[in-house]
Order: sequence, then C-alpha cells, then structure tokens
Amino acid sequence: METVSENKCFGGVQGVYTHASDATGTDMTFGLFLPEAEGPVPVLWFLSGLTCTHENAMVKTGAQAYAAQHGIALVFPDTSPRGDGVADDEAYDLGQGAGFYLDATQAPWAPNFRMESYILNDLSDLLFASFPLDQSRQGITGHSMGGHGAITLAAKSDGRFRSVSAFSPICNPTQSDWGQKQFEAYLGSVEAGKAHDASLLVKNLDAPLLVDTGTDDQFGPLLKTEALVAALEGRETPADVRMQAGYDHSYFFVATFMGDHVAFHARHLKA
Amino acid sequence: METVSENKCFGGVQGVYTHASDATGTDMTFGLFLPEAEGPVPVLWFLSGLTCTHENAMVKTGAQAYAAQHGIALVFPDTSPRGDGVADDEAYDLGQGAGFYLDATQAPWAPNFRMESYILNDLSDLLFASFPLDQSRQGITGHSMGGHGAITLAAKSDGRFRSVSAFSPICNPTQSDWGQKQFEAYLGSVEAGKAHDASLLVKNLDAPLLVDTGTDDQFGPLLKTEALVAALEGRETPADVRMQAGYDHSYFFVATFMGDHVAFHARHLKA
Repeated sequence: METVSENKCFGGVQGVYTHASDATGTDMTFGLFLPEAEGPVPVLWFLSGLTCTHENAMVKTGAQAYAAQHGIALVFPDTSPRGDGVADDEAYDLGQGAGFYLDATQAPWAPNFRMESYILNDLSDLLFASFPLDQSRQGITGHSMGGHGAITLAAKSDGRFRSVSAFSPICNPTQSDWGQKQFEAYLGSVEAGKAHDASLLVKNLDAPLLVDTGTDDQFGPLLKTEALVAALEGRETPADVRMQAGYDHSYFFVATFMGDHVAFHARHLKA
Repeated sequence: METVSENKCFGGVQGVYTHASDATGTDMTFGLFLPEAEGPVPVLWFLSGLTCTHENAMVKTGAQAYAAQHGIALVFPDTSPRGDGVADDEAYDLGQGAGFYLDATQAPWAPNFRMESYILNDLSDLLFASFPLDQSRQGITGHSMGGHGAITLAAKSDGRFRSVSAFSPICNPTQSDWGQKQFEAYLGSVEAGKAHDASLLVKNLDAPLLVDTGTDDQFGPLLKTEALVAALEGRETPADVRMQAGYDHSYFFVATFMGDHVAFHARHLKA
C-alpha cells in the first residue's frame, strides 16, 4: 500500500492510498477518513455512482464533519478498475467508472471487473489489517449505482454490515436501462443480473435500512424506487424510504442528507 | 443573466449563473446559495484562490450546511476573466485563474483583468438587483489569494462589509513571490502593489476579522502571516489570527473551519 496524500481534516486524517488488488488485477485507489477518536473505530463504506472515482464523495458530501462528530471512519472506494490494460467502453455507464459492484463473467470484462470481490475481500482485508478499524461495526451506504452496490453487497453478505443506507439508489436494475445493459455485458444476460438486484435481494437483508431519493431526480425513472418500496412491504426490520421534495440526483442532494445518514449509521454502529 | 443550473440544497437553492460584465469585458460565471429563509437575507462572499473557478469552494467547503442553518446567502465569484480573447500565462499563478482581485493597468492584462471593479461594482449591482439579498448586511471571506482579496477589498471599501474573515490568506504580497510577480505584471511595479497588500491596508479596516491558517501549510512561507499579525497589534476592533496545528492549505482545512467562519459572520450580520 502506498500513501498518495494525507490531509488533516476535522481533527482526523483524510488519506488517499493505492494498493495492488488480486481481485481486479490492477492497482486501486481509495480514500479513508480516520477520526481523531481512539481506535478501533466503526467504519462506514461509501460506494459512489457512475463516472465517479474515490474522490467525488470524499470532497463533495461534507461527510467528514459528521464522521468526526460521531467518531466513525469513512471508506471511499473507486467505482471500477482503471488503466490502459483494462477494458472500457465509450458510454459513461459501462466499463471504467461503471463497475456496478459485481464480478463480471464475460469477455472482455471478466479479468478485471470484479468489484464485489474487491470490496468484500481485497479492500476489506487490507483496511482491517492496516488501520484501527472495528470489523464488527461496519455500515455501508452509497449514491446511485453505489446505492445499488450498498444494498446488494449488504444483502449478499448478511451480518457483515450492521446498517445500510443509500442516496437515490438504482433499486431494480433488471427492469431498468441502468442495469439491463450492464448485466448483459458483464454477466451475459439480464437473468444473471437477478442475483444483483436490490429489490430482489432485499428480503435477505436483516439490517436496518435508510433510503433518500429526490422527487425531482432527473434519473428518477431509471431508479425504480417503487420496486424497492414494494419489496420492503411487510418487512420487520426497520426500513425507511424517504422521497425528498424538490431534490435532484446531484451531490448537493447527497450533502444535504449526509448528516442524517451518518447519524443513522452511528446509532446502529455504536449501539 | 442566464441560469446555468439550480439545485435544491439544504432546503435552499444552489444556483450557478452567467452574466456579461462591463468591468472585465467578458461573460462571468458565479455561484449563489440562497437559503430557504425569508429575504432579504444577509450575504457572505467567498473569494477563491489560485487556479480555482466559482465551483471549487461551492462544492468542497460544505458551507451551504452552515449558511442554511444561519439563514445567510453565499456568493462564489470566479477568480478572473476567462476565454479565448483574454490574456493568459502558462504559469498557474498569473493570468486566468489568478486575478488577485485588483484592476490591472498594464498590457496585456488591463482590458479584462479588473476583478476589484467586477466584485465591488458589476457583480454586486447584479446580485442586489436580482436576488433577495440585504445590501446592508454583507460579510466577506476567502481562501489564499481569495483571503488576500477579502481583506483588501474590505479595507478599500470600509463600511461595506460588516465582518471579514480568511482561510490561509496571502497576507503581505509585496514581500512574497505570491504578489511581487503579479504586481509587476498587472500594475507595473511591486510599489504599486502596496495599495493591494493586506498587511499595509488592514489599518483601514474597521470590521471584526477572523483568520485561520494551518501550521503545516505547504505554502506557509509565501503567506507571510506574521506580517498581518504585526500589523494588527494595538488594533481596537476585534481580530483573531488562529494558527491551526497540523492543518495544511487544502480544502479539507477550509471545510474543517467553515462552520466557525459562517458562525462568526452570522453573529455580526445578524446582530
């Protein structure tokens, strides 16, 4: 692991690091905010959306202010493998910057596009071996494609994440242009994508869930929020899907409700 | 004036607008955050540093959270005129992105590089004519070159800004490589720059002043903070220059203390 940068921030340290990942076969970059608190501290993962790197949420959401207040670390992974030897596509929503948090099985993506294994194994192992983080107190959140990632990765590894939240998540990708295209490319069929669809997996998720989505989200029809709401009906574990009047898909929306989300995770991680 | 974007943010609206400026002879872009509060509301100007546009502070400082809480508007001007017909230099610290908040008198800069007139006249006139802002309750802050701008513009227009603050400001540019080069280029001599030097002008400033600068600022030697501290000795109006242990020059530093600065301005603007 190499240190790219470390900046003091809200009493703690906002670091950026690179490391070689076996899962992706590439070097990967991530951000980690460590609060001033005595470790090991709880950790909240933030998975970003299409076109983002590790950096967008790290600089645009204001999350460190709340994490410092609650004594929680934040992890900002990248959204895909990158580099000259890595497959890509001209579209913004396929290839580099669009990993969809799954392990691809199809050419040309399979060798590198293994973001599920990267997050749950490689990066996780590195973080808990290298930093004073409490593996038994993890929460996960994300934005858009990263909201899809947060809910699906949590559902697939039930018990690993004590609390789950999402900002304008892609909720039902097997029924959306944000999903069908990628499942066909990465997995060979939309059918195979059913194993990576939040609305189909959420029944396996036993953690409390908080979702915020704007009523003026310019990508609203692609998110299929109503499918997630339907899938949550009758669920016993608390789940709150809030439609926020007048908000869109931007980081201004994410920043607005970041304080609520960090407080939600802190409540469950520090209980 | 044309609207580039408007995003709901912390209950208010973060807008980006362009307008034709007589002062610079170009179109100029700025950001404006309007809180949900009943207008006219107090307004805090944020002047950005070298290489920045209107956007950096608008997306990286988290200022809207605090401004919404206090019911204050935020203005994020650009740092220089821009465009194909506008003079420029290959250096990051001269030309486009490096206006230094003064009116240039020398070729090739004089026709467009008139940021003092732009801020104090053109943009000011537009803002108070177009938005529910209270002209009698203005504060000003900024970062680095923008901290220089905040203190010098406030000193030159004493009474206009009720409160003044700065993050890692360039404090004594006539004695620094961040200043001498630019004063020679824009004004023809370092001597002419004395009319735009915070440490020389601050005696004319009758508003309360708050300055934060990091002890690990990588540009610390260029800032000449000690000259500002010396110039403030014996001053009767409150002035607080705080050296923040371990912080550097980055926006992570600015974000950390933004809450303090907005609260400082709110106290004076809403008194």
